[in-house]
Amino acid sequence: MLIVMKPQATEEDIRRVCEKIEAMGLRAHPMPGAQRTAVGITGNQGPLEAAAFESLSGVAEAIPVSKPYKLVSREVKSEDSLIRVGSGANAITIGGRELAIIAGPCAIENRAQAFAAAEAVKKAGARLFRGGAFKPRTSPYSFQGLGQEALEILAEVRREFGLAIVTETMDPENCDQVEEYADVLQIGARNMQNFSLLKRAGRSTKPVLLKRGLSATLEEFLMAAEYILSEGNYNVILCERGVRTFADHTRNTLDLSVIPAVKRVAHLPIIVDPSHGTGKREKVTPLARAAIAVGADGLMVEVHPEPDRALSDGYQSLYPEQFESLMTEVTAIAAVLGRTTAKPLPIAE
Amino acid sequence: MLIVMKPQATEEDIRRVCEKIEAMGLRAHPMPGAQRTAVGITGNQGPLEAAAFESLSGVAEAIPVSKPYKLVSREVKSEDSLIRVGSGANAITIGGRELAIIAGPCAIENRAQAFAAAEAVKKAGARLFRGGAFKPRTSPYSFQGLGQEALEILAEVRREFGLAIVTETMDPENCDQVEEYADVLQIGARNMQNFSLLKRAGRSTKPVLLKRGLSATLEEFLMAAEYILSEGNYNVILCERGVRTFADHTRNTLDLSVIPAVKRVAHLPIIVDPSHGTGKREKVTPLARAAIAVGADGLMVEVHPEPDRALSDGYQSLYPEQFESLMTEVTAIAAVLGRTTAKPLPIAE
Amino acid sequence: MLIVMKPQATEEDIRRVCEKIEAMGLRAHPMPGAQRTAVGITGNQGPLEAAAFESLSGVAEAIPVSKPYKLVSREVKSEDSLIRVGSGANAITIGGRELAIIAGPCAIENRAQAFAAAEAVKKAGARLFRGGAFKPRTSPYSFQGLGQEALEILAEVRREFGLAIVTETMDPENCDQVEEYADVLQIGARNMQNFSLLKRAGRSTKPVLLKRGLSATLEEFLMAAEYILSEGNYNVILCERGVRTFADHTRNTLDLSVIPAVKRVAHLPIIVDPSHGTGKREKVTPLARAAIAVGADGLMVEVHPEPDRALSDGYQSLYPEQFESLMTEVTAIAAVLGRTTAKPLPIAE
Amino acid sequence: MLIVMKPQATEEDIRRVCEKIEAMGLRAHPMPGAQRTAVGITGNQGPLEAAAFESLSGVAEAIPVSKPYKLVSREVKSEDSLIRVGSGANAITIGGRELAIIAGPCAIENRAQAFAAAEAVKKAGARLFRGGAFKPRTSPYSFQGLGQEALEILAEVRREFGLAIVTETMDPENCDQVEEYADVLQIGARNMQNFSLLKRAGRSTKPVLLKRGLSATLEEFLMAAEYILSEGNYNVILCERGVRTFADHTRNTLDLSVIPAVKRVAHLPIIVDPSHGTGKREKVTPLARAAIAVGADGLMVEVHPEPDRALSDGYQSLYPEQFESLMTEVTAIAAVLGRTTAKPLPIAE
Repeated sequence: MLIVMKPQATEEDIRRVCEKIEAMGLRAHPMPGAQRTAVGITGNQGPLEAAAFESLSGVAEAIPVSKPYKLVSREVKSEDSLIRVGSGANAITIGGRELAIIAGPCAIENRAQAFAAAEAVKKAGARLFRGGAFKPRTSPYSFQGLGQEALEILAEVRREFGLAIVTETMDPENCDQVEEYADVLQIGARNMQNFSLLKRAGRSTKPVLLKRGLSATLEEFLMAAEYILSEGNYNVILCERGVRTFADHTRNTLDLSVIPAVKRVAHLPIIVDPSHGTGKREKVTPLARAAIAVGADGLMVEVHPEPDRALSDGYQSLYPEQFESLMTEVTAIAAVLGRTTAKPLPIAE
Repeated sequence: MLIVMKPQATEEDIRRVCEKIEAMGLRAHPMPGAQRTAVGITGNQGPLEAAAFESLSGVAEAIPVSKPYKLVSREVKSEDSLIRVGSGANAITIGGRELAIIAGPCAIENRAQAFAAAEAVKKAGARLFRGGAFKPRTSPYSFQGLGQEALEILAEVRREFGLAIVTETMDPENCDQVEEYADVLQIGARNMQNFSLLKRAGRSTKPVLLKRGLSATLEEFLMAAEYILSEGNYNVILCERGVRTFADHTRNTLDLSVIPAVKRVAHLPIIVDPSHGTGKREKVTPLARAAIAVGADGLMVEVHPEPDRALSDGYQSLYPEQFESLMTEVTAIAAVLGRTTAKPLPIAE
Repeated sequence: MLIVMKPQATEEDIRRVCEKIEAMGLRAHPMPGAQRTAVGITGNQGPLEAAAFESLSGVAEAIPVSKPYKLVSREVKSEDSLIRVGSGANAITIGGRELAIIAGPCAIENRAQAFAAAEAVKKAGARLFRGGAFKPRTSPYSFQGLGQEALEILAEVRREFGLAIVTETMDPENCDQVEEYADVLQIGARNMQNFSLLKRAGRSTKPVLLKRGLSATLEEFLMAAEYILSEGNYNVILCERGVRTFADHTRNTLDLSVIPAVKRVAHLPIIVDPSHGTGKREKVTPLARAAIAVGADGLMVEVHPEPDRALSDGYQSLYPEQFESLMTEVTAIAAVLGRTTAKPLPIAE
Repeated sequence: MLIVMKPQATEEDIRRVCEKIEAMGLRAHPMPGAQRTAVGITGNQGPLEAAAFESLSGVAEAIPVSKPYKLVSREVKSEDSLIRVGSGANAITIGGRELAIIAGPCAIENRAQAFAAAEAVKKAGARLFRGGAFKPRTSPYSFQGLGQEALEILAEVRREFGLAIVTETMDPENCDQVEEYADVLQIGARNMQNFSLLKRAGRSTKPVLLKRGLSATLEEFLMAAEYILSEGNYNVILCERGVRTFADHTRNTLDLSVIPAVKRVAHLPIIVDPSHGTGKREKVTPLARAAIAVGADGLMVEVHPEPDRALSDGYQSLYPEQFESLMTEVTAIAAVLGRTTAKPLPIAE
């Protein structure tokens, strides 16, 4: 059920609606919009009576939500959500006219590598820096990331380059640690239905980048996001990164049709990761162009100063100069859709 | 094995190489290029000796082909193939700088519907007209196409509007009939490995549009094209139209990564069908933009003058005005990649 | 619509019902059952009026069929169909208590190989012999079968060993030739939606073995069978042979759940091909046991006298002694379900 | 690298080999076998020198392991692993001649439901009881399990009925709590690559039941098990529960070919869950028969005293009498393979 407030409803009206909802043992989710506020209700077993709310002061109408996902649905919030990342001069808004470009190495390997990558991606126009501190790896014997050391390097990167930091959290406990350093908490594809982690991220104050699972349907993807919103964190950025199919010419099959499909039913921004989506360096730029052309709100791209020496995912990481070309091409495509990329930040001397 | 001729080799040199190959019980495929001619050899069981050919007059070198597909491979022909469709003033070249836009209804239903569709797509800039005369349908009880009557309507469309005709052939026998009327023979996804039909199309003088099967790997797709080339018809246009996966938000999952994958290893043009690739009208235009952005050589789009009354595929057919917008957007994206769409043909008064 | 006749309805009653149907421009499919005859109607665009038929003599009731497939549906015929193959002393019934075991090499390579295979499979208890004369191959350069020569060898195998012959037909034209020699016409997975071939097989007097396509849903599989029945040939045996998935430890993923799924909604027998279903020799016997345990009506197994020298599919063909073990194990599993395998035919001295 | 000890090697010899390995900064995994002990080494970056170990007292040979998975591989341990569950009179061995039958409701709903289910499954011959306390649910608004209350009911079930308890753990923290009550820790399909949870389970003293992920390849499945073994817990039981494909006649596609595929390369037992594998009650028994016929070491089946009132998965839960039939049929199939089910435990008056 969604309670839509009148445009002239007061803070006090909204507070009273929330109190009423909580008095019923349910959960209230006030969602301020451009014109008026709506209050989502979750936690009910069966349908609720609209009349119980429509008589309250400031309430325009109470409408049932028909989809299994509630808070992520456009039924609850028709305008696109804008997610604010970072703060101060370097704050970025994801989901608006400007594309969000997240770039950097698969894993943080050492300070020099991280700084070289950060300099390269900043120069080309990225405003967010990716780099794994904790790496989910198929093999227990593969490099698992530098952990705390990497988090500290990431903090330095933010300080030095003014880039916002996106890095992965792997379990609820580890979330406490990552949250201290990251501007955006990344939840990987293999953890898309790690419900304990989703709930924990839902209690974070940081925005969450949620990657689609390898065999997740659209509904499962949105329900995973719903877990995060239902705990009170409405700042979720979705990310398509390829699904698993029989096709063997790419590592995964990038499903770009999910972008307009998400946009149709949900208000959250969605970006594309063409690096994991293809697994092959030479396909990253063409698919990045396609992602922007289809309407994605941004990109997440692996860039490494020396891909041939990377400890992980080297074959899908771009060389810095390839990333520069990608940015040029993507910016031109974005213009056709009335969108822009950020102006590159000034590089400090 | 591929015999590469010297740039100055004469017609007579080439003829002698072909004779030698055929005297060995093998098949010769002379493929003229911009600089020089190459002659592909097929039909050998094991490897051939290069020396047997390199001593012939005009031969530059004899090189083994490493891929299972031979004639479609860039190893055999490194330049992009340009496929010429139609003749005279209305001739079109597919695979070059200009995108090939094929549009029209799923099936030809009657003369009025075909003419209305043709007028609309021509006005928006399409130069090729699609329309089924013989329809492969999942159910034996569904509308199977008007057959001969539709072919005659298509011939009228060509005469009246100057559009080249693309229509499907369903079996070797039916190919004789379709070939008389079509400018391009279409082979549908369900027939991609109908080897009898592929061989018959390989003996046609008309170019062939070959759609990727619902669960075809890249190699199987190229091997199906190889069947056509191996019979002597080198004019094949590939078409990605979505593959079958677990994802249920679209009818098929459009695999745009196959475009750069094909371009890397094969010299044939490849276009995209976003109508079957998504099965939903509102996703056709975003995916059409993405297809051009990723590097496709053209589009095949279902357009119907009255989609709500269509006898088949109505829910995925564009309204004429939607197709006009699609063309505008696609033309702008094409420009970013240095490509164009055709100038709309003049509409006769 | 299905017209169910009364148990005591006469031949004349049935004839009159059929005449009435055909006079309406529709098609009548009389299907005799153990208790009474039903007459299926196909060809109608919209729903028919029951009253138009229920007043005819001998008609019990007229019931609409709710599924997209009509003639294959248990709504139309609730008892299992029994398909009679061959004639005289060697006639076999498929779909009853006795399992149908079809075995033999992938392709007929020469008389000696065919005879050695036939002797081995007959000795182990197979009553039907498989062997390709026309082979659908991914590559145009692979061995395509001996054609007419193989058909003649197959005729000799039937004469010498008393085995019924199952062999593949690849297109409508080729069907004329194959039909002369085969006891069962096989339609391969890649041709499951070759609708021209399905219609041609529907006009044959020989039973048809229809393999499930690599990415066919249950409904598409049954609709392909419906094409054959709708042309008047009700003798269709379905065959599960693995579908295409992401899994890479087998060539295809054998979907045994389709057996009970088919049995629930359709009256046709269904067998399993564990050779193509796994693509690996060592998995054929375990999956053959599972196929019988799940309720399949038989098996189709590749057996070669010398698998290591096979011209095709050698790695998935059983050695004769492996096939003997398979038969022993399968017979024991069958007994648990109250089913049997045939007694081995006597081997002529 | 695997160090194979001589049959007559002493405890002291083995201890010295382990010390040597650990002194090199690596990890030693002593694995006692029937004839002799082997010591697996993990943690090395590159290949190790065999000579460094072969000179030690009691060492037969040092052999490199060629697969990405080490400790689960038959290269390291050629005999089947037997996993001991529970203790005392009710101890069960999984992986031997006797099949492991795990049955019970999807979720523990209350004491009466749990007891009714336990009585029914015990009577039919199950020796292990399943029942969720913590339920991973696609929707945050679905019933998430009774948590601690359910764990206490499960402990009562063990006490009253002598059944071993299998229940799911959802995250590393929650593992502490579950471990106290369960005899076997279950890790669900959606958590198969929750590496933090795998590592935590690897440090448990309880056996782990690891379900295959919805789109996990054989190698990924074994690598997930390897995570558990690499932390020192060698008691892992694998479970096939269906994978995600395009097929829509079942909820998932049960991939029974993975059973012989696992058996070929790994020494761990593997069971099958036909309830989740099909998602439809009427398909559970046929697929259970097939699972045992293909060679699985047991079954995990959902049984509910009143499926129509179940809070989750009711449509795939068997009625108690259906489970009895399943047990009868499965026991008969098992006999064909020389295996048995347990004699039903006596029901206390």
